Amino acid sequence: MAKKKKTFRPKARVPKGLRDRRADDVRSERAVLAKIQTLYELYGFDPLETSAFEYTDALGKFLPDLDRPNEGVFSLQDDDEQWLSLRYDLTAPLARFVAENYDGLTKPFRRYQTGPVWRNEKPGPGRFRQFTQFDADTVGTPLMAADVEMIMLAADTMETIGLDRGDYVVRVNNRKVLDGVLEQIGVTGGEDAAAEEQRLTILRAIDKLDRLGAEGVGYLLGEGRKDESGDYTKGAGLSKDQIATVLAFTESGGNDVNATLDSLRKLVGSSEIGQTGIAELEEINALLIAGDYGPDRVKIDPSLVRGLGYYTGPVFEAELTFEINDDKGQLMRFGSAGGGGRYDGLVERFKGVKVPATGFSLGVSRLLSALDAKGRLKQDISKAPVVVLVLDQDRISDAQGMVQELRNAGVRAEMYLGGSGMRAQMKYADKRGAPIAIIEGEDELEKGEITLKDLILGNQLSTEIEDNKTWREDQPAQLSVKRRDLVGAVLDMLARHEPNQEPEMGTRHA
Amino acid sequence: MAKKKKTFRPKARVPKGLRDRRADDVRSERAVLAKIQTLYELYGFDPLETSAFEYTDALGKFLPDLDRPNEGVFSLQDDDEQWLSLRYDLTAPLARFVAENYDGLTKPFRRYQTGPVWRNEKPGPGRFRQFTQFDADTVGTPLMAADVEMIMLAADTMETIGLDRGDYVVRVNNRKVLDGVLEQIGVTGGEDAAAEEQRLTILRAIDKLDRLGAEGVGYLLGEGRKDESGDYTKGAGLSKDQIATVLAFTESGGNDVNATLDSLRKLVGSSEIGQTGIAELEEINALLIAGDYGPDRVKIDPSLVRGLGYYTGPVFEAELTFEINDDKGQLMRFGSAGGGGRYDGLVERFKGVKVPATGFSLGVSRLLSALDAKGRLKQDISKAPVVVLVLDQDRISDAQGMVQELRNAGVRAEMYLGGSGMRAQMKYADKRGAPIAIIEGEDELEKGEITLKDLILGNQLSTEIEDNKTWREDQPAQLSVKRRDLVGAVLDMLARHEPNQEPEMGTRHA
Repeated sequence: MAKKKKTFRPKARVPKGLRDRRADDVRSERAVLAKIQTLYELYGFDPLETSAFEYTDALGKFLPDLDRPNEGVFSLQDDDEQWLSLRYDLTAPLARFVAENYDGLTKPFRRYQTGPVWRNEKPGPGRFRQFTQFDADTVGTPLMAADVEMIMLAADTMETIGLDRGDYVVRVNNRKVLDGVLEQIGVTGGEDAAAEEQRLTILRAIDKLDRLGAEGVGYLLGEGRKDESGDYTKGAGLSKDQIATVLAFTESGGNDVNATLDSLRKLVGSSEIGQTGIAELEEINALLIAGDYGPDRVKIDPSLVRGLGYYTGPVFEAELTFEINDDKGQLMRFGSAGGGGRYDGLVERFKGVKVPATGFSLGVSRLLSALDAKGRLKQDISKAPVVVLVLDQDRISDAQGMVQELRNAGVRAEMYLGGSGMRAQMKYADKRGAPIAIIEGEDELEKGEITLKDLILGNQLSTEIEDNKTWREDQPAQLSVKRRDLVGAVLDMLARHEPNQEPEMGTRHA
Repeated sequence: MAKKKKTFRPKARVPKGLRDRRADDVRSERAVLAKIQTLYELYGFDPLETSAFEYTDALGKFLPDLDRPNEGVFSLQDDDEQWLSLRYDLTAPLARFVAENYDGLTKPFRRYQTGPVWRNEKPGPGRFRQFTQFDADTVGTPLMAADVEMIMLAADTMETIGLDRGDYVVRVNNRKVLDGVLEQIGVTGGEDAAAEEQRLTILRAIDKLDRLGAEGVGYLLGEGRKDESGDYTKGAGLSKDQIATVLAFTESGGNDVNATLDSLRKLVGSSEIGQTGIAELEEINALLIAGDYGPDRVKIDPSLVRGLGYYTGPVFEAELTFEINDDKGQLMRFGSAGGGGRYDGLVERFKGVKVPATGFSLGVSRLLSALDAKGRLKQDISKAPVVVLVLDQDRISDAQGMVQELRNAGVRAEMYLGGSGMRAQMKYADKRGAPIAIIEGEDELEKGEITLKDLILGNQLSTEIEDNKTWREDQPAQLSVKRRDLVGAVLDMLARHEPNQEPEMGTRHA
């Protein structure tokens, strides 16, 4: 006897480190993206969309904390043998786009882009391998006013999405100042590969100040550090004095910006690049003050480095300063929600000439978690549909007709498309969060009527009225009307529960 | 002497078959997506977003016209050795999602999803390896009313995005009728692999009717066909009589739906599945007529098969019927802009039990081309920014202040961030399409004034006024106002050019 072929059944599972987002999450993100988009449009940025893939050689290796090539990105070989990678950010594709289309672009070129990026990293709680970024960049200008605009944009973004002033601060620093300090202690970086590696190791060490504190960072600046798990990280090999100078640099920030600048001036001494960096910080500070972006929103903070090697001047980071309870009930700060800076070398990789540029990149998924934690995410941003029940399959066209009339009047509506009875259908309407269920039973049909059940009112009353008999006899949350009055009656019933303000949905342009 | 290290310069190029989309294209797509979204929400569908990747085994092999495995998708191996693929449509990820979350879902489950999909195919003119789809599906209902809803949705979508009735038709057929016809001529398909392959070859052959005509399809149903390039396609191996029956089936459509159904009844004879298919078509037809979706919008058309193997019942396709001139000046029809049907087996792949489902998938990129060709794409859907000129870098904070004031008043504005002089700045404002340029020159500064140049009016007048002297002396398109009156004067000047209707942008929910 022939054996029955065994059917292969794949296991239905979302891939490791990825996730599905359901209606509430999609709508929340959409509403937040729309607000950011409106702001960026107001600032005069135009949208651009590049594809998910870039040639791997065009992307380059700018991921933070990566020492091995090709780590951190999803790559595959095309049928013509060329390697493709999924974008890991929106800056590298922009640099490629600008280099490819340089002559035809109106410069300075101002664009924003939003969309998913992918990182082939180890996933963890709240750490996914696909997430949404929202970037704005201005390419083709060396002016500090362009960096200042990014800093203002960062601060405005935090407020436009619903955070209060004081919930965030935009920290600002300048890579050139750090380079000046390093020059003073004899670390040069740049063309020499070993020296540049030492410089990047120092940047990465400082970037861990928040997590490790000055002592831990001191080890990373010196011989190296063994963490709790026993893993050893090689250090930058600086001497005690050198380490002290670097740590003094990171600690020279404070509420008095002039005192900060004075300290920095001493640390960079005669270094030309260091002095340029301080002059740039002064100019940024002056424009911020003129624009009324004071220390309640923006702070000069020398401890900020940003891990990415490609920054060449000002760097900034939007930090969320409020505390929330994490999963284990521990108080935690949200930390960075986005950052950016000046990168005058990224387009140069392709063209061989410097093209000055500055940008700001938002971590949208992180922002959403923060808004959620602060209770600032509106969950009720879409109206659930009115559900028309179908009590007799032979009269399904009646239900279809009611649904059509409602939709034509702009009412979100659907008919029950399952095969179950009255009780299951009411349960369905309830699960859908429907404001109204519409019933055309036998009795109603004879009278040319339909019954509207106000499910919102019904839910309220059911907690108030304890007397079952009263409930059944009065049926205060339902209403019978003539079939022809369907739309008017539904609109009236919906209006009862209408909030006074417009629902904040969607995308509007300035 | 040490040789100077040669720097590697990657070539800046968008990968093969992919593309960058600039502001106008992004805004056009966004506006169309917003309209579709509003409609789908009105129908009661909720959004869902799955990630770009799925496990390859979960995706399955449902691409049309593919005989070799793994062709057509972008795949890579994860660090745990599992194969991942980028989604090639939005249906396969939905099936995986439903199977994974089945018990917790409110059923019937109604969702829409939009986003890019990727196909690793040979690119061609207008044929890209990443494109946007927009899908709606209802999972968990066997009712024809659910399929009818999809058909109505398809028709409504065409009109909501700006096509006229008559520009499109939704063609409807039922796989079961074809299966009945095949049963009558002795082709069974199903469990037997060779027979199923023959059935799919027949489906693919019929799918080429538009392109090859009845004769060409006849060859593909029989021995096979050699195309103009000399490539030979193996046929389904049917006899002459069998071929005649299949072709008669495809030709049995017409304007009289009852005549069509009568012809089909004869062709399926005693086949049970064929009779079920006809009964389903009758039910669909009755509901469409009840809903007033007549032959001007929807047609029963037995020549429609849709290439995908997974359909199990009704299939439908939104066809754009108008002609446009193609790149070579030839009249061409746009053809399909989307399609769908019932697929009761897709979730079963995972769960082993049938989960009835039906859906409709739109090809958004194709729709955009069609709208563009019809002149129905609004290109002017965003206002260009007001540009504030910077004539003296020492007074850049003045310009920054003006821009801030304008933005706070909701006016899209930017200052010139390049380093060039007056003439280049005016050229920049012109290239940006700016409605107004704002100038604070030396003279103006002394008087506490600024000058507003109405660039829209200026462009109009410059074509009308030929007398250079009049132009220079009257300067009809510019206006000097006190600095403190900036915002009011800009708003007044913008209002001159305001169209009477609201700009149609963004996403609004029902």
